[in-house]
Amino acid sequence: MKLVIAIVQDKDANKLRSVFVANEIIATRFSTSGSFLRAGNTTYLVGVDDDKVNKVLELIKETCSSREQFMTPPVSLGGDTSEHTFPIEVQVGGATVMVLPIESFHQF
Amino acid sequence: MKLVIAIVQDKDANKLRSVFVANEIIATRFSTSGSFLRAGNTTYLVGVDDDKVNKVLELIKETCSSREQFMTPPVSLGGDTSEHTFPIEVQVGGATVMVLPIESFHQF
Amino acid sequence: MKLVIAIVQDKDANKLRSVFVANEIIATRFSTSGSFLRAGNTTYLVGVDDDKVNKVLELIKETCSSREQFMTPPVSLGGDTSEHTFPIEVQVGGATVMVLPIESFHQF
Ligand code: NI
Ligand code: NI
Ligand code: NI
Repeated sequence: MKLVIAIVQDKDANKLRSVFVANEIIATRFSTSGSFLRAGNTTYLVGVDDDKVNKVLELIKETCSSREQFMTPPVSLGGDTSEHTFPIEVQVGGATVMVLPIESFHQF
Repeated sequence: MKLVIAIVQDKDANKLRSVFVANEIIATRFSTSGSFLRAGNTTYLVGVDDDKVNKVLELIKETCSSREQFMTPPVSLGGDTSEHTFPIEVQVGGATVMVLPIESFHQF
Repeated sequence: MKLVIAIVQDKDANKLRSVFVANEIIATRFSTSGSFLRAGNTTYLVGVDDDKVNKVLELIKETCSSREQFMTPPVSLGGDTSEHTFPIEVQVGGATVMVLPIESFHQF
């Protein structure tokens, strides 16, 4: 068995949860934060059989990959009211995933 | 040395803490949640010498095993007051435990 | 690659964050607590190349080592006002660090 540790953006965390449930993958999650940006993220721990590791990686990749998204910035307060805000392209998502060997796995 | 990762029900988390203390096992804990039921659970990280792994597993098994318990459901609100509530048997506890190899261990 | 798991005192956690950022080490952190003293601590997960493990260990050691510090205890409430409080020496800091093998590392 392997332990998959996946650190994903909060934005994608709930969708990943649903994807895991739909695929009968049992995962444990907790809130974490990054060291560069203090932004919150979510870390998943998933214990899986060796032959399911690729499936889990694929699901994380499909659900959480870094991608660009158009976002309309909020109107600046006290700004020129004649000014419009235009959607800008921002990077969202992204996942860091580590696969570790497990020596033994138990359920009590 | 090995890293024991134990995911246990919140219900059993404090008792496990006491059991670890009584057995001089140093553990670190944090709050986690499951992906199926969103129910809260507690994850323990325990770094132990190889020859203590079985002892740690045994303590977790004794303290946290899945078991049945009788519980009296709360009286339904607005229900027929002549109705009684009877204790029902529910599944409580349970632990998922992974043992991982450690390459090096340091205390500073 | 290796996964470095470092459990450090809350007192040193923010300084370690800055040290990691200054050294371009990407880390994920979360709040944990110990089992003996229920005192809060902070756990860092750091995925690093093999040849950077020693550097990471060194940074943790420099930043978080257990050391003695003089602290002035708060004046006891309702005590003899003619009494002075003197600084006492207390143990602060300390880190527990585990290095684990990683089988594969992915960024999506
Ligand atoms: Ni573009
Ligand atoms: Ni029964
Ligand atoms: Ni001294």
